[in-house]
Amino acid sequence: MTTSAPPPKTDSDVTRLEQIQELLDRDSWREAADLLRKLPPAEVAHVLEALPLTQRQILWDLLDTDQDGETLMELTENVRNELVQNMDQEEIVDAAQQMDVDDLADFIQELPVDVTREILESLDEQDRRRLETVLSYPEDTAGGLMNTDTVTVRPDVTLDVVLRYLRQLGDRVPRNTDQLFVTNREDKYLGTLRLADLVTHDPQQTVAEVMSLGVQPFNAYADADDVARRFEQYDLLSAPVVDDDGRLVGRITVDDVVDLIREQGEHQFMGSAGLSEDEDMFAPVAVSARRRAVWLGINLATAFLASWVIGHFQETLDKIVALAVLMPIVASMGGVGGTQTLTLAIRGIALGQLSGKNALYLVIKELAVAAINGIIWAVVVGLIAGYWFHSTDIALVIGAAMIINLIAAAVTGAVLPLLLEKLGIDPALAGGVLLTTVTDVVGFLSFLGLATLFLL
Amino acid sequence: MTTSAPPPKTDSDVTRLEQIQELLDRDSWREAADLLRKLPPAEVAHVLEALPLTQRQILWDLLDTDQDGETLMELTENVRNELVQNMDQEEIVDAAQQMDVDDLADFIQELPVDVTREILESLDEQDRRRLETVLSYPEDTAGGLMNTDTVTVRPDVTLDVVLRYLRQLGDRVPRNTDQLFVTNREDKYLGTLRLADLVTHDPQQTVAEVMSLGVQPFNAYADADDVARRFEQYDLLSAPVVDDDGRLVGRITVDDVVDLIREQGEHQFMGSAGLSEDEDMFAPVAVSARRRAVWLGINLATAFLASWVIGHFQETLDKIVALAVLMPIVASMGGVGGTQTLTLAIRGIALGQLSGKNALYLVIKELAVAAINGIIWAVVVGLIAGYWFHSTDIALVIGAAMIINLIAAAVTGAVLPLLLEKLGIDPALAGGVLLTTVTDVVGFLSFLGLATLFLL
Repeated sequence: MTTSAPPPKTDSDVTRLEQIQELLDRDSWREAADLLRKLPPAEVAHVLEALPLTQRQILWDLLDTDQDGETLMELTENVRNELVQNMDQEEIVDAAQQMDVDDLADFIQELPVDVTREILESLDEQDRRRLETVLSYPEDTAGGLMNTDTVTVRPDVTLDVVLRYLRQLGDRVPRNTDQLFVTNREDKYLGTLRLADLVTHDPQQTVAEVMSLGVQPFNAYADADDVARRFEQYDLLSAPVVDDDGRLVGRITVDDVVDLIREQGEHQFMGSAGLSEDEDMFAPVAVSARRRAVWLGINLATAFLASWVIGHFQETLDKIVALAVLMPIVASMGGVGGTQTLTLAIRGIALGQLSGKNALYLVIKELAVAAINGIIWAVVVGLIAGYWFHSTDIALVIGAAMIINLIAAAVTGAVLPLLLEKLGIDPALAGGVLLTTVTDVVGFLSFLGLATLFLL
Repeated sequence: MTTSAPPPKTDSDVTRLEQIQELLDRDSWREAADLLRKLPPAEVAHVLEALPLTQRQILWDLLDTDQDGETLMELTENVRNELVQNMDQEEIVDAAQQMDVDDLADFIQELPVDVTREILESLDEQDRRRLETVLSYPEDTAGGLMNTDTVTVRPDVTLDVVLRYLRQLGDRVPRNTDQLFVTNREDKYLGTLRLADLVTHDPQQTVAEVMSLGVQPFNAYADADDVARRFEQYDLLSAPVVDDDGRLVGRITVDDVVDLIREQGEHQFMGSAGLSEDEDMFAPVAVSARRRAVWLGINLATAFLASWVIGHFQETLDKIVALAVLMPIVASMGGVGGTQTLTLAIRGIALGQLSGKNALYLVIKELAVAAINGIIWAVVVGLIAGYWFHSTDIALVIGAAMIINLIAAAVTGAVLPLLLEKLGIDPALAGGVLLTTVTDVVGFLSFLGLATLFLL
């Protein structure tokens, strides 16, 4: 139950990783494995993720500890799947037996049916029932996030009785228990008894007198993102989860919420490059190449769309070659300006701070910002381009195109993610590609179009 | 001490925000303010951030609760500064007095000297000393993150004595206390006594017998990012902070770590668009325009660099206009491929999983991925371009340029962030601009260069 001892504080994560790497460089595999075995699962996972594929696999095979199950669950999904693929059925079942129910529920869904069956058969009646409870809720809900290791007490007993009950439980009080849940005979959730309240009140008082009623339980179908936000806003350490009838079915602890928040952040960042937040830095080349190919293919289609637009102005380009030299500037500035608006909007949506109501304000504000910057940079670009190619006409055309494209970029950046969200498409993933398609097309069209109209 | 009651569970954040917005649409300012006053500071902050500037300011002036200080600290820095600018000195001092010491330490550094002096004078001796302790450490260290509200016990007393002491303290036990810290007479940190252990052991046992020795304290100068990672890895709820002599100076709680992790994620995501993680969605137009102008200006410089490269091939473009039509494709694909590698590398660095040791593996792997995708898409692009312009030569040139640029992109994407990190430049901020500069230049240079060599 006690947290395992972390290594001396001078060992930062990076230097520990380097220690392992040095051992591997000297082919001291056993020593490296011995060192790893002393670390908690999360740190083992951290080191494994940072190792190239072959080293990772060899070390994993050497490790084989009774922490394998926990370590697996600390790995990102892609790394875990890679390792599990090379484990035999017995090893997988062994690992599964070390997992918490919430982890096991995630794990089991990634496995072949026959392995799943064997794992289910290896569980005792109680654990199987608990697992089925968690599995009955979608992964991205409070029910999918929760664990079933709740300690419950009745409202009419005294704190003294609770204290004696806890002493009996001893080590079986689950990790990171900051509060007990108060339920009635039908398992209906009534309130929580915080350990801090338990120890600061007279033992003769009843649970009903001391318990907090303010902790609102999560419905098991509540959105996991909403759960995370509530944890942040209320500084929660744990929270009860109830079913539609108000019966306590489990609890969510802040450590799982921390992982969720980390994933959300990575999802936005990695998603904008077309990567999954589970992307393994050292994934097999074939796997990486295949995944990347899809994204490059999508972008190639949009790039050809832009080329097709340019293709309509071949006559113009043929006559004024300066246009070919300058045209990427207009497209590029639109992309940069639009991405800024898009990024603000995507974050706003993810935080639940941007909806239909205030979207209009955002569009107006971003339009104003784009107009100001459009004018400023139109003047700068116009002056430089005009001087370069000794042409006032080119200066005027590129300046006008710049203003048009920055304004189009601002509107697209603000409206597009809201539209995608409405259509059920993830703006963090699709927003960037679509935005630059618009800014490329508008950029080339406005610049070459204006040039065709006024310069030929 | 008890958590304030959240509103009914059917009220998700978005609908609550919409409720407020509807009230404001009907000019029911008082009603909106009354509704807000019932919410905890974090939710008030959430709503305020989602409101356009004018509405936000009016509502803030109406609010004026004894939670103003906490609400201010829940706001992102830019929104907070905007509001504080319009507060008079008395209001600021009032708000400051409601803050925790760690928040106050952050807050005070953003204020003019005379306001700071008044706040310091308003504090009692103990709070001033505590504030000075926190202020003596940089903001991004364990010391800057910690609070000073620790409850300490001596090792030689019995649990029974601890329980009586806690009952005396009652409501003064700080929020989210999951463990007490064990110190000797010189305030040296010895171990922690978890409340869960306190309630599950015989009251006649001594603290020394029950306390956990495994919880390694953070040195006050430890990097805040390392602190966050340790919290994640060990599923910590709180952790002790000690000075260089091992004396307990404070504790870090998981709710502050949650905020830090959220900020780290937003920093990467927003940074790649040249925005700060504190960027206010509804910042004043002039402020936004100025900040954005800098980023657009930097990008304009890189765009002109690309144009300058193209400018050297005017003769070639003049002869084969198809090159102008196709050249953005090569540059764009390089940018997309390189950004994927860059994103992986930036995350690896941020997680402490990428350093000199395994960087070579990443470069080799990304090179292999780029080579495979380079060949695949070179064939596709070559076929389309060749068919479009009826020219095998163009097909061969664009295919070769594509392979060159994707390979250059992969190397740059993997090496650049490590180089920037070494130079003390934030790769999340500068990486994207520099990468696309490279992929634009290499893209145009290889495509137009090869065309000049082989097609003229």
